[in-house]
Amino acid sequence: MKKAKIVEVAPRDGLQNLQAFVPTDQKIALIKKLAGTGAQEIQIGSFVSPQAIAQFRDMEEVAQAVRRLKGFVPSALVPNGRGADKALACGIARLIFFFSVSSKHNYANVQQSPLDSLKELQHICRSHLSNPSMTLRVDLATAFGCPFSGNVTTAAVLRTVEKVAALGVREITLCDTVGFGHPKDVEEKFLACFRRFPEIRFGAHFHNTRGLAQANALRAYDIGVRSFDSSAGGLGGCPYAPGSSGNVATEDLVFMFESMGIKTGMDLKKLLNVCAWLQKILPQAKLSGSLFQAGLPHKHKLFC
Amino acid sequence: MKKAKIVEVAPRDGLQNLQAFVPTDQKIALIKKLAGTGAQEIQIGSFVSPQAIAQFRDMEEVAQAVRRLKGFVPSALVPNGRGADKALACGIARLIFFFSVSSKHNYANVQQSPLDSLKELQHICRSHLSNPSMTLRVDLATAFGCPFSGNVTTAAVLRTVEKVAALGVREITLCDTVGFGHPKDVEEKFLACFRRFPEIRFGAHFHNTRGLAQANALRAYDIGVRSFDSSAGGLGGCPYAPGSSGNVATEDLVFMFESMGIKTGMDLKKLLNVCAWLQKILPQAKLSGSLFQAGLPHKHKLFC
Repeated sequence: MKKAKIVEVAPRDGLQNLQAFVPTDQKIALIKKLAGTGAQEIQIGSFVSPQAIAQFRDMEEVAQAVRRLKGFVPSALVPNGRGADKALACGIARLIFFFSVSSKHNYANVQQSPLDSLKELQHICRSHLSNPSMTLRVDLATAFGCPFSGNVTTAAVLRTVEKVAALGVREITLCDTVGFGHPKDVEEKFLACFRRFPEIRFGAHFHNTRGLAQANALRAYDIGVRSFDSSAGGLGGCPYAPGSSGNVATEDLVFMFESMGIKTGMDLKKLLNVCAWLQKILPQAKLSGSLFQAGLPHKHKLFC
Repeated sequence: MKKAKIVEVAPRDGLQNLQAFVPTDQKIALIKKLAGTGAQEIQIGSFVSPQAIAQFRDMEEVAQAVRRLKGFVPSALVPNGRGADKALACGIARLIFFFSVSSKHNYANVQQSPLDSLKELQHICRSHLSNPSMTLRVDLATAFGCPFSGNVTTAAVLRTVEKVAALGVREITLCDTVGFGHPKDVEEKFLACFRRFPEIRFGAHFHNTRGLAQANALRAYDIGVRSFDSSAGGLGGCPYAPGSSGNVATEDLVFMFESMGIKTGMDLKKLLNVCAWLQKILPQAKLSGSLFQAGLPHKHKLFC
């Protein structure tokens, strides 16, 4: 059976750029509603300093509320060892460490060089990787291009993957943080990674900023990628391109996969209900998903 | 060299659903500006009854003004023999006849059965197909689904193609009129057409209503389709899905192809300038293109 895993990132990537604080109970409600759509994994937020992202100042409370919910794996982003310790202390056992392939973007994002981020990662790996109940995924931001330095080569991605792999990490996601990627680049970079690092599971994180997220996901699936991040409603947006869309919308991605007979385990109608609820509680947020605007096709058969 | 032909449809598909009449000089200016972007073919409008689409009541004037412009082929839609005669009398020698695979959509669109549309097509073929200076393309609407009857099977598409081919037509475009198509359906239908009708050149016309136009175009290119309709700015929208996007945006499609090293002969910066101009003269129209909102990537290299 053809399958793809969807990692729902709305509570994290979707909320992190919102100016207005989303009340804790609404964050928890969002995660519960997303769990009801069949999402296998939900990124519940980031364990970052409240000075960096005030939106996540209630992470511990959110984590405590959702950690024991059934049916999905809660995961959280951590930029450093302190964040990892906090997440684990709150019972979140799936951590996502992130840094950028591009030096300029890493400075802009976490105020340090990629090498210093790697040292943080090394610290996390040494402290926690032997813990059998904990899993770690590493996200490589700007793997398909950087808003400051432009093109990011396959060689640069491979060099970064190599350093991460050397620390014992076995799950890496290539992220098109600002929507520069295109299907040929996706094919080239993932195939190069598959060939060179067969021991590592690679996932994809695409943004639809320039309209190519679905084509990129299609190509990634074609060549063997089976884990895809997406955000309900396409919630979230790149601060570098005001008005443009951000993460690919979960319902759009699920619509493509399920239409093609690729099972995601997610319920499209429930997802569209979550979008409608999101639009109600966040009227100022732009939901960029296409399916939410257009609706399901008339008499649509989901599985061909 | 990898190549794709883009057929620019903004003056036709883009304008046809606008309530407000676009002045004739602005229509002519749009066509001239689009010609400047490198479009090989531009659909300048439809030779339909002004009672059906008032927007095109000035078609003869528009045709007279652009017929002798250099650098592109002007084409026009014709729903019947009368329209074909008018177009040819105005010096437009590339005609596009259209009808729907789905009976219900054809009734809604041109108030007759597909069989009656085929009779009109037969009339056009008998009168004009022997004219060496005239070319004819036939568009099959709702080839990937109908807003009234839902699913449209590959068998139904093949049956319709067969009837059109029997009249001597050698160019057929499969149209996803309302954005129901997905990459697997695209692959199945085009491959079936290629196998069964090797003598016919098939083109694709995708709408982005449910966010899949680019993925569909990618898959169509993968399997050998080389002609793609698109509309500058994504101008146009389906009246059945208010607020949703319509035709795939030319600049988004060109961005995908050119990024992948597939030459379209079009100039992205000039296309984005046309979008900005369109937004100025049509402030009420929704330009749904992603690239126009987000801009070109920083230090973007068009050709890999």
